[in-house]
Amino acid sequence: MKILNIRSVGLSLSLEKGLPLGSGLGSSAASAAAAAVAVNELFGRKLEVKDLVLAGLESEAKVSGYHADNIAPAIMGGFVLIRTPTKKMRAALPAEIGMSHHVWNCSQAGALVASVLQGDLVGLGKALSSDRIVEPKRAPLIPGMVGVKKAALEAGAFGCTISGAGPTAVAVVDSEDRGVEVGERMVEAFWKEGNLKAVAMVKRLDRVGARLVGSVPR
Amino acid sequence: MKILNIRSVGLSLSLEKGLPLGSGLGSSAASAAAAAVAVNELFGRKLEVKDLVLAGLESEAKVSGYHADNIAPAIMGGFVLIRTPTKKMRAALPAEIGMSHHVWNCSQAGALVASVLQGDLVGLGKALSSDRIVEPKRAPLIPGMVGVKKAALEAGAFGCTISGAGPTAVAVVDSEDRGVEVGERMVEAFWKEGNLKAVAMVKRLDRVGARLVGSVPR
Repeated sequence: MKILNIRSVGLSLSLEKGLPLGSGLGSSAASAAAAAVAVNELFGRKLEVKDLVLAGLESEAKVSGYHADNIAPAIMGGFVLIRTPTKKMRAALPAEIGMSHHVWNCSQAGALVASVLQGDLVGLGKALSSDRIVEPKRAPLIPGMVGVKKAALEAGAFGCTISGAGPTAVAVVDSEDRGVEVGERMVEAFWKEGNLKAVAMVKRLDRVGARLVGSVPR
Repeated sequence: MKILNIRSVGLSLSLEKGLPLGSGLGSSAASAAAAAVAVNELFGRKLEVKDLVLAGLESEAKVSGYHADNIAPAIMGGFVLIRTPTKKMRAALPAEIGMSHHVWNCSQAGALVASVLQGDLVGLGKALSSDRIVEPKRAPLIPGMVGVKKAALEAGAFGCTISGAGPTAVAVVDSEDRGVEVGERMVEAFWKEGNLKAVAMVKRLDRVGARLVGSVPR
């Protein structure tokens, strides 16, 4: 509302949240995106996408820190490459990284971007699965994660890693059927190897981003 | 010749080298590529590109270390992303890297790949110019480099950095004329700020790679 230059209206939003909290799925950003888009719709849709991201960033800053990693893709859809990352350190991650790991992960980052742009699912999965810095530090904190990844790959996923800071695990597949199968194997592994009760969801990448899906006049 | 399974022939090659030695331009790889392609042409052109790279790698290993950073693009042309980088440490580079620098450089690597695939020269130049790990360590070892980069960007280059381990500086431009202008400014800066006599060359990216350009029957 500040960006819209509206200062004299009070607004109360109620949110119907479809994502679990603290899951590493970026649910706080999803909420912030919904709020930004809803307010923009209410007041004449005057903001550009860039402004919506900036507005969402303000909300994110309150709960998750000032970074666009989640809010930008939540609003813009598709894959979003963040070029000016936050300096904020994340829990469980090392402050210093060995040169060979750095070069390795940089290569995977490049391969991941190339795979996305070329629609290469095999390459995308491989790059996603090849993190030598973050995943090795976080995986041991998620009971069963190593077995879950193994199960996903064995069931035919192109790649598997931790979503955000976890504990959600994410795998890449190319069909709903395969997704259901991979999901079942992952849930099984979480239970057997981590003693964790998990649920699996198969979702298609949203390329549009946050938008008005309906409105109820009062 | 080993890959070609030719063991009974002695071969002497003479090389007409158009690149200076120890320049950071990958001249040893260029020579290795020329040799691999020449031998393949002499013996019936039986090798695939992959084999040519492997053959070139053996030569590179003798002089520059076992890494495909230069030999792969020299043989294949265009931009080549190396996904399994060498573990060999390069001189003057830190063994450990801060997490924020790592994340920053990874983002630039991703942006660079995206720019190449999308033909975005502005993005390519920006990514090339944004290295926070290698260039800051190597630039102080090259007299005048900081001023040379500044001069290149001011003269309209999209980006400028050190080529390989240096001392060559490389800049990205979109026309021959602009290239000549940028080159002159860079040579000037090398002289004024580094007391170094430099020469500039404007070259178009070769997308084909090493190939037979002519043969003289004896």
